[in-house]
Amino acid sequence: MADMVNFDEQDFLRRADIVYTRRAELEAMADRAYEDGVTNVLVCSVGGSLATMEPFALMIDRMSDLPVRSVHAAELMAAGCNMVGPGTLVLMASKSGDTVETVAAARWLKERGARIFSSTGPDASPLAELSDYDFHFGDGRPLELPFYLFVGRLLADRGSFADYADFADNLASLGGALNAVRKQFDERAVAYAHAYHAEPYHIWVASGDLWPVCYSYAMCVLEESLWIRTKSVSSPDFFHGTLELLEPGVPLTLLVGEGATRDLDLRVARFAEQHTDKLTVIDAADFELPGIDDRWRALLGPAVMNAALQRISKNMEVVCKHSLDIRRYYRKEAY
Amino acid sequence: MADMVNFDEQDFLRRADIVYTRRAELEAMADRAYEDGVTNVLVCSVGGSLATMEPFALMIDRMSDLPVRSVHAAELMAAGCNMVGPGTLVLMASKSGDTVETVAAARWLKERGARIFSSTGPDASPLAELSDYDFHFGDGRPLELPFYLFVGRLLADRGSFADYADFADNLASLGGALNAVRKQFDERAVAYAHAYHAEPYHIWVASGDLWPVCYSYAMCVLEESLWIRTKSVSSPDFFHGTLELLEPGVPLTLLVGEGATRDLDLRVARFAEQHTDKLTVIDAADFELPGIDDRWRALLGPAVMNAALQRISKNMEVVCKHSLDIRRYYRKEAY
Repeated sequence: MADMVNFDEQDFLRRADIVYTRRAELEAMADRAYEDGVTNVLVCSVGGSLATMEPFALMIDRMSDLPVRSVHAAELMAAGCNMVGPGTLVLMASKSGDTVETVAAARWLKERGARIFSSTGPDASPLAELSDYDFHFGDGRPLELPFYLFVGRLLADRGSFADYADFADNLASLGGALNAVRKQFDERAVAYAHAYHAEPYHIWVASGDLWPVCYSYAMCVLEESLWIRTKSVSSPDFFHGTLELLEPGVPLTLLVGEGATRDLDLRVARFAEQHTDKLTVIDAADFELPGIDDRWRALLGPAVMNAALQRISKNMEVVCKHSLDIRRYYRKEAY
Repeated sequence: MADMVNFDEQDFLRRADIVYTRRAELEAMADRAYEDGVTNVLVCSVGGSLATMEPFALMIDRMSDLPVRSVHAAELMAAGCNMVGPGTLVLMASKSGDTVETVAAARWLKERGARIFSSTGPDASPLAELSDYDFHFGDGRPLELPFYLFVGRLLADRGSFADYADFADNLASLGGALNAVRKQFDERAVAYAHAYHAEPYHIWVASGDLWPVCYSYAMCVLEESLWIRTKSVSSPDFFHGTLELLEPGVPLTLLVGEGATRDLDLRVARFAEQHTDKLTVIDAADFELPGIDDRWRALLGPAVMNAALQRISKNMEVVCKHSLDIRRYYRKEAY
């Protein structure tokens, strides 16, 4: 435990505080969005940023009657989306604030009367400039935190989240709880990195609001940063094709959530343990989350799972001697 | 050309006619659905059947103002969907009509007042039994054809598809046009099967209404039937991770559509031809479609591409000496 690689506990607390101490600012933005009128919600960005927000589309769907959809920024501009118009609130995210497709989509959306909430890193950026409600998180983390506060408060304003204040109070402990997850999972993450870093192919599976976490981790970390081949597939769809590839020697990593689709994940676990000796089950229910009431655990699943997975990345980086920052093509070539 | 394996031209024509000759029946169902009232549309099933219908969700989105979403049957039952209620028209499909999750979802949907259009194979089945508008296609094909007619007529009834009658008239030629596609593509399919059947890993890419075709072909044919490892990724998301895995020797298969997102596909082609010697581009625009007006080509892209891809399957089956009907687990084990 003393030797966790690339882990600065105090820095994680500081970064969570960067966002949480601005809770009032995010809530005021949500109040303004509510007062400006919201008839439907679109979640729109690209790649990992889109995946970060997709759990909030599910949260809105489950807790309210607001129509909500998720669309890739590039597909939106090419093909449109018939729900967009005045009254549409768009959630957008970009760490740099200058992701080309996301900025272009923001412009497209503004032309059609939509309002934009964006979460971006820098003090100023093209995406923030185009947004009606723009939050700049600097090096604050986790990336989900601004959305828990903004979306939670918006749902509260609409009468769809009666206990929002208690939920948001709990978020004061999120930074510490995620550090606890990192510590609880690190030993398994070290073992995982040693066991599986040289595998030629990984199957990754999850469902519900952990599906975007799984999709994004496989694509944006294992593929993009570590050049490891993956197939990610949702727990229910696993049984409609990918299962036939499972046999002894094939690594399958399953993320199990505490939310509504938990049984779909457990079904994969039961099948996979019969058919591969390389099954890893990461169950959100196994983590202690100090300072977090049990009733908020499921909603925090994406942030919890990303904290655990980060320990795999950090250990993979060391075991593979492959920095997570090296790319073959990204920002090295024009395409 | 004389020696196309597993290709019975007359049988394909017969099977297309099975559906087309019942155009009036499908249109009458669409008229009834329209008269019963449709406030929004849900596309819901599992695996390949869901993928077959997803292009029609895009068609509805692009041509009308009807809210439309696609949800996996298992996730629907576990987690719900806030758009479902009286006025919801659900499109469902199951070749057997007894897919467990789809039938259970149909029951769940009926309890909430939704109306169901289903397309199933047998004369009678549990899914058909639960449906308000049930079409039984027997061994009719392609699977998209009932949806072109039902969805097209429904949009026409709503005033969103002025030229529907001409489109539907063109569908009389669909069976012949798809045979022409099979013939035009077979030589390339044979070469593809020989070149790539033993590759340890394939990247498959597409966008828009060819994305579900790509997703489903990779999962339900290459993985499920041929036990070939794949990563399928949408053309825009390819650039947000998977691109880093491309290098000489890695096969990438790109489906290029004629619709709104064509440029997103061509961007992948330009990148991939720089970075792998194993690039296959299947461009829907390259096929002659006898009897089909140019203006309907884009809308027919999913059926056209599936016809071409079928030639890969049929040739892979021969080259790999691996029947498409063999499974390790499906319908052999309970899970």
